[in-house]
Amino acid sequence: MTLRRAGIDVGGTKCLGVVLDDQGVVVAEHRLPTPKGPEAIVDTLAAVAGALGRYDTLGLGVPGLITRDGSILASPNLTDTNDFRVGPLLAERLGHRVWVENDATCATIAEWMVGAAQGATDFMMVTLGTGIGGGVVADGRVVRGVNGFAGEIGHMVLDPDGVRCPCGRRGCWERYASGSGLGWLGREALQQAPMPRVLELAGGNEADVRGEHVQMAAAEGDTGALAVVDTFCRWVALGLANLTNLLDPAMFVLGGGLAAAPEVFLPAIRSHLDRMLYSGTAERPQPSIAFAALGPHAGAVGAAMLPQVH
Amino acid sequence: MTLRRAGIDVGGTKCLGVVLDDQGVVVAEHRLPTPKGPEAIVDTLAAVAGALGRYDTLGLGVPGLITRDGSILASPNLTDTNDFRVGPLLAERLGHRVWVENDATCATIAEWMVGAAQGATDFMMVTLGTGIGGGVVADGRVVRGVNGFAGEIGHMVLDPDGVRCPCGRRGCWERYASGSGLGWLGREALQQAPMPRVLELAGGNEADVRGEHVQMAAAEGDTGALAVVDTFCRWVALGLANLTNLLDPAMFVLGGGLAAAPEVFLPAIRSHLDRMLYSGTAERPQPSIAFAALGPHAGAVGAAMLPQVH
Repeated sequence: MTLRRAGIDVGGTKCLGVVLDDQGVVVAEHRLPTPKGPEAIVDTLAAVAGALGRYDTLGLGVPGLITRDGSILASPNLTDTNDFRVGPLLAERLGHRVWVENDATCATIAEWMVGAAQGATDFMMVTLGTGIGGGVVADGRVVRGVNGFAGEIGHMVLDPDGVRCPCGRRGCWERYASGSGLGWLGREALQQAPMPRVLELAGGNEADVRGEHVQMAAAEGDTGALAVVDTFCRWVALGLANLTNLLDPAMFVLGGGLAAAPEVFLPAIRSHLDRMLYSGTAERPQPSIAFAALGPHAGAVGAAMLPQVH
Repeated sequence: MTLRRAGIDVGGTKCLGVVLDDQGVVVAEHRLPTPKGPEAIVDTLAAVAGALGRYDTLGLGVPGLITRDGSILASPNLTDTNDFRVGPLLAERLGHRVWVENDATCATIAEWMVGAAQGATDFMMVTLGTGIGGGVVADGRVVRGVNGFAGEIGHMVLDPDGVRCPCGRRGCWERYASGSGLGWLGREALQQAPMPRVLELAGGNEADVRGEHVQMAAAEGDTGALAVVDTFCRWVALGLANLTNLLDPAMFVLGGGLAAAPEVFLPAIRSHLDRMLYSGTAERPQPSIAFAALGPHAGAVGAAMLPQVH
């Protein structure tokens, strides 16, 4: 009988469970809406686990600051879950061990084991979604940090006098370089000059312009949208340059909505990064940039793989 | 016969060699001025090694981007040393293996093995000198990066429209939070309001105000200097907050000239860092902040210890 590893990705809107066979292939899948409140979440997770059929191990990917004992310290995307012992409570309910890790770390593990970063000893996953999530593999190991909170790269401050962030500070990377950041840069640009195609895609209302409208217009070749995308790529590259100076990874794996249109972003990110890397006067090898291979299943797949990297 | 480990720290002005006994105690020491040009440096390193007496292993700490095969890719502090194969050439000259690592990484290893960070599994060394150097220990291992270039934290950009840096970009952390940065902040403050004590310590000339003058006046309680130190500590804390969000270390070890006067800096750094950490709405453990224990010998001691961590 083959080993069956289960993983559940706890998202802001749904809980997605998968079972992998011993080749890492998804052989079962089940999803339920994420309810509000901690007790209801444990109920839902137990229901997803029950619907997955037989499994040998179970991992959870959870957004937010996840402690090493599997509790949520704080999670902006889940209601009333501060200090919520999700891992221990689910383990008690199910009567077996549950592995728990931050969801972006899970996605990093999935890309490392079966995705775009197979074989890399030093790489970083950077997920450009509503915010920016991240995961670090250094010297062949997943970096968790002493509390388990490593990888909160979206709140790297890149401009202390910059745009206000809901986290309470100013100029966090994710204000500029996430999907929301692309939308914001688009709305800012509309204050300076008209971008009829972007406005049309947004249904005619400036306030409704989002990142995907800019991305779509840029993919069609719209000049104004392409300029916004270039500014956006400069912000992406600035963060990647800082991360490279700190950890010297061989590659970045970019995930999130952008992964659907790499040709729109990749050339500009590469060219800005080239100019921004600290290298003295000599040539230094550039980290390569790849796009995530696994898509929306990455978190659940990585959660299932947690026992293999712990 | 006890094991004798030798290490040489190649500085901008001098090459300092030490020999450690198997307790990590310095039992021999020799220094020579650092000459200009690569061939002369190899001669000097061979002379220092020769003067150290019997040793079993030899390590080198070298400033700049040091490749994993022990070559200098680029080193702003050493003349004409781009692509200089210092490790292999010295090994050839001496007829035995030579371990080579970036000097800040060596200092990190020394503080980890026999200094302020003994027993830590996750910590970062941050040396606030003329620039800012750094070293990373994550999950009980020294992080080198794929090329060996990890830890170049001084060139983390914190303000893309900020002060110009000799590296070619703007707003690098070391423009604000290093010893040079403290001097610059002092000179900027003098444009706004007089600081007679700082000016006096600098010999009466505004252009001669350096970090140590501000530090000294602040230690005496000078109000203007204390305000400059507070601004400086905010910049220090901003970088530490970014590093914490990324790697979640248990502690920072601060080195450099500041380590001589922790009472001037520590309270303000702590209080700014408290407010800057990303933590959602919950309490998260703060990384502790310690000052380096080993002083100017740290680089040579860590170089001697390289065989123990490789």
